[in-house]
Amino acid sequence: MNSDATTAATAALSDRLVQQLRFVRELDRLKSVLRRTSLADRSRRENSAEHSWHLATMALTLGEYAEPGTDLARAIELLLVHDVVEIDAGDTFAFDAAANADKAARETAAAERIFGLLPDDLARQFRARWDEFEAGETPESRFANALDRLQALVQNDAGGDGGTWRANGVTREAVLRRMEPIRNGAPALWPVVLAAVARATAAGHVREERGADGATGVTGA
Amino acid sequence: MNSDATTAATAALSDRLVQQLRFVRELDRLKSVLRRTSLADRSRRENSAEHSWHLATMALTLGEYAEPGTDLARAIELLLVHDVVEIDAGDTFAFDAAANADKAARETAAAERIFGLLPDDLARQFRARWDEFEAGETPESRFANALDRLQALVQNDAGGDGGTWRANGVTREAVLRRMEPIRNGAPALWPVVLAAVARATAAGHVREERGADGATGVTGA
Repeated sequence: MNSDATTAATAALSDRLVQQLRFVRELDRLKSVLRRTSLADRSRRENSAEHSWHLATMALTLGEYAEPGTDLARAIELLLVHDVVEIDAGDTFAFDAAANADKAARETAAAERIFGLLPDDLARQFRARWDEFEAGETPESRFANALDRLQALVQNDAGGDGGTWRANGVTREAVLRRMEPIRNGAPALWPVVLAAVARATAAGHVREERGADGATGVTGA
Repeated sequence: MNSDATTAATAALSDRLVQQLRFVRELDRLKSVLRRTSLADRSRRENSAEHSWHLATMALTLGEYAEPGTDLARAIELLLVHDVVEIDAGDTFAFDAAANADKAARETAAAERIFGLLPDDLARQFRARWDEFEAGETPESRFANALDRLQALVQNDAGGDGGTWRANGVTREAVLRRMEPIRNGAPALWPVVLAAVARATAAGHVREERGADGATGVTGA
């Protein structure tokens, strides 16, 4: 095939389809955004693309624990889209207060650019899904956010070494606060949190705070 | 928290939920199954978990090119599930005839074991999704299979180096045959294939067969 034929074949694509393909190529970059959490075998850190797949497939597996009436298909859409902004904004570690201070601004700018690659109607649809996830105000969003927290807990628990909790000296109370969206969005899964935190506490992988002065220590009680 | 409390917290989980969580942990292993295709920046090979996320998000992006009446939510379910069997069976390279000979048997055994971790009703549901994807007989399955092929093409095309096509000396005709599910399941996307193959042919990244004797060579015509 000569270059005239190449040009002709490319020209056959509509502007709309060219925009969609540009977005599809951009999505590939989420595979290079590393999270703090690791694979269960601790061979490497997890990336945000495979994390998003894990969450969406968890929604299929655990859908019965969502609030009655939750549209699981839309919850899955939220999960597929929820981390795309990290292509520009990076993953922000849950327990890093400084990085979380400007997280919203960084991610909003990222949403403008990345979803802006799409034709207007699709850009609005993707943006609406991301906004819905972030707001946490619908049953679908509450369930999606619950799974997002649960997956990190499962990854930390699965390795038997405390994962990011131990590595960062996180307290039991901080873990439970962080997991609060599970109690909110999928209360039937809250016992999973309590069991994992009990294991991690017993193993000394999360610190148990004692007293109101912020002093910490592992206690037997 | 003492070990009695740990035991009590774990015992609070139903057998059903314990099975579901075991499956959720098993899913993590798909992140370690490597495909032949690479990320667009060629920094590393792609794994089947992030590939599955890419496909599901492509379905959201390109859904308008599915056959009219296609249930996109179910197409996304098929895509989330379609590679889970690779946890046991591994990724089988499209152009490896020997490995493809026993692919079905390996993958069926994998489906039995992996989906069998789930409670029976969910095991049947996941197995049905995988069977539907493999059979390619519904609009949802045809669209899902089309995207599966398209994503490999996009990855090969994006790097500008011919990717697995060039690395394996694949012919133009073999690529077009491999992409046939796109013409079948999302014919409006077939021009994307023609454009990418035209680029790859012009660049010498796919071989152009000449004559009926199987001899190959790059031609200018």
